[in-house]
Amino acid sequence: MSAIDHTVNATAELRRAETQSPSSRVALFEADQPLALDGGASLASFQIAYQTYGTLNAEKSNAVLVCHALTGDQHVANIHPITGKGGWWSLMVGPGRPIDTDRFFVICTNVLGGCMGTTGPASFDPASGEPYALSFPVVTIRDMVRAQAMLVDRLGIDTLFAVVGGSMGGMQVLQWAASYPERVFAAVPIATAARHSSQNIAFHEVGRQAIMADPDWSGGNYLALGRTPRKGLAVARMAAHITYLSDEALHRKFGRNLQDRLAITFGFDADFQIESYLRHQGMTFVDRFDANSYLYMTRAMDYFDLAADYDGTLANAFRGTKTRFCVMSFTSDWLFPTSENRTIVHALNAAGANVSFVEVETDKGHDSFLLEEPEMFATISGFIAGAARRRGL
Amino acid sequence: MSAIDHTVNATAELRRAETQSPSSRVALFEADQPLALDGGASLASFQIAYQTYGTLNAEKSNAVLVCHALTGDQHVANIHPITGKGGWWSLMVGPGRPIDTDRFFVICTNVLGGCMGTTGPASFDPASGEPYALSFPVVTIRDMVRAQAMLVDRLGIDTLFAVVGGSMGGMQVLQWAASYPERVFAAVPIATAARHSSQNIAFHEVGRQAIMADPDWSGGNYLALGRTPRKGLAVARMAAHITYLSDEALHRKFGRNLQDRLAITFGFDADFQIESYLRHQGMTFVDRFDANSYLYMTRAMDYFDLAADYDGTLANAFRGTKTRFCVMSFTSDWLFPTSENRTIVHALNAAGANVSFVEVETDKGHDSFLLEEPEMFATISGFIAGAARRRGL
Repeated sequence: MSAIDHTVNATAELRRAETQSPSSRVALFEADQPLALDGGASLASFQIAYQTYGTLNAEKSNAVLVCHALTGDQHVANIHPITGKGGWWSLMVGPGRPIDTDRFFVICTNVLGGCMGTTGPASFDPASGEPYALSFPVVTIRDMVRAQAMLVDRLGIDTLFAVVGGSMGGMQVLQWAASYPERVFAAVPIATAARHSSQNIAFHEVGRQAIMADPDWSGGNYLALGRTPRKGLAVARMAAHITYLSDEALHRKFGRNLQDRLAITFGFDADFQIESYLRHQGMTFVDRFDANSYLYMTRAMDYFDLAADYDGTLANAFRGTKTRFCVMSFTSDWLFPTSENRTIVHALNAAGANVSFVEVETDKGHDSFLLEEPEMFATISGFIAGAARRRGL
Repeated sequence: MSAIDHTVNATAELRRAETQSPSSRVALFEADQPLALDGGASLASFQIAYQTYGTLNAEKSNAVLVCHALTGDQHVANIHPITGKGGWWSLMVGPGRPIDTDRFFVICTNVLGGCMGTTGPASFDPASGEPYALSFPVVTIRDMVRAQAMLVDRLGIDTLFAVVGGSMGGMQVLQWAASYPERVFAAVPIATAARHSSQNIAFHEVGRQAIMADPDWSGGNYLALGRTPRKGLAVARMAAHITYLSDEALHRKFGRNLQDRLAITFGFDADFQIESYLRHQGMTFVDRFDANSYLYMTRAMDYFDLAADYDGTLANAFRGTKTRFCVMSFTSDWLFPTSENRTIVHALNAAGANVSFVEVETDKGHDSFLLEEPEMFATISGFIAGAARRRGL
């Protein structure tokens, strides 16, 4: 491939990303900065779509990296360009919020393999001029973090004041603290795990099989063929969505309430509100998410096993760290239960790290970290304030 | 339809049932005994495929009805004609087993709407000569029990010594005790609920959507078209199968163990044993179960809300009952958790019923009732022995 071809393709990709996510900035990494991936492949050129909020101070010491979860993106605190809804964590990030954009320079990147502007399976492969589809290399949480570190370099930031995220975002936080301890002053992993459990791999596999069972998935080549595996992706989302809630919350919110009808209809329509709600979750998800990207994101989570890179001992990932940690879990989260988060705390304790741990009492399940949870906000506000004092901010 | 036509069709259906399940007896109910269904429809003729074990005594007082769960069938204690495996509850039912076929006459019917010989959506509609498919009326747990009662009548049995079952089988047990209290001497509902929870409806809806998303489902008419929605049904089974196990059991059994390989492959093959296991569960299920029947069975469970038939007060379902109850739950069952079973116990207490309750400590999840659980066997043996003494057996 000639240099000119490459530039043309890269520009086309850039344009496409800007069209997809008009409000995002895009950092392009050219062939002089290839990204070596855990799987052995290398991305010769790629881009990262990201949002920033607030102002970087002169010392470049007030940057907070927010890491998104499986189906999140960089639109953490602004209106989403596709759904028109508020940012996915605008309760947490914004002026006067726990992660206060009046004080901090907040960065959120669409992760590697994502579908909101960062290079992923839906991006055009400069080598073929076609969407990567399944020829995109399977990436890991560490690959995502490696790409984020390149963006942080590009922004001229040496040390991040904090790295914060829940669920898959929490995995990235742990990976940042392990891979770049000197670049992370404070770390807030929420509702996460140092390795993905068997049950969670199982749920992901169901989602992947649902997508791949959809004939429109077309062996992954649906974009080139102008198709979308809508039904398969919707089923995957529906199954996953149940795991984000709790039995109690579903009972409280929906119970056995009927939808728009006075009695059951003895049929297969959505008689129950919970059915209608789930179908809606499935259908709307398809409008904003790429099916192959879903395969890649779930796979990255499945592969995450931080201890495996450190002789099987999680504490070794954090030996000698000066990072201050705040670990948080939620009582009704059965996807990333307190026990998984406590395992992280025990490893940090064993490594002699500075760590605080809070289990928030709530019935809202795994999604609690995205919701109005006063104890979570108070805890993170307090932790950030204390860390900022230590950092001299 | 002439009488002759009807006989021909019925015989054809009978032959078909015998072919499907060669070892099952089949009771045919003709138009003189129509089955009125909760949904308002009526089955003018239908059949029940069933197995029996042991000998009915002269007083006809030693009959035990075993009720199967969602994907079970009548082959409770014999080699399954399709899979070639042992009966699904041969640990519980057989000579010298807790439900001892040397002492008791055990009956197990394939439930109404099932696919192992009892009339269901895969049966031929005598009116059209085609498979019913979605023209089969949606049936309820009470309809299933009504049909079973007709078979019990046919067998000349007035009072069942015991009705026993887990999960959907437990729902039938509760319905039997509520609908026919004078015909049930002892009742053993295991790992069940008096009404299906919001979360459980949600999981069922995911399964149904997975089936209906499969183009081979063909709006339900796949049998007439010679198709099978294999992929959709397999995904439904995979999702459901996770809910039958527990996080702990999955961790103990599979953890993050790899399948036939030394390292992850950075792809979407089944790297992990849990993935391979789930895929196998999905694929083998398709060989023995009808997709529409899966829709109907899950719907019957979703619709189950016993209290709703008794002014919303579950205790009213059991007022004045003389039936002796043994309710059982399992600590790691998150599909039908102890709290749901305790609700049944509280209602029975409020109704002044004779009830014992045991929560078995195990990490095997909902499927515990099908597995080697010594405490379960000891409890049920003891309960059955005590009830048999009272019954003068």
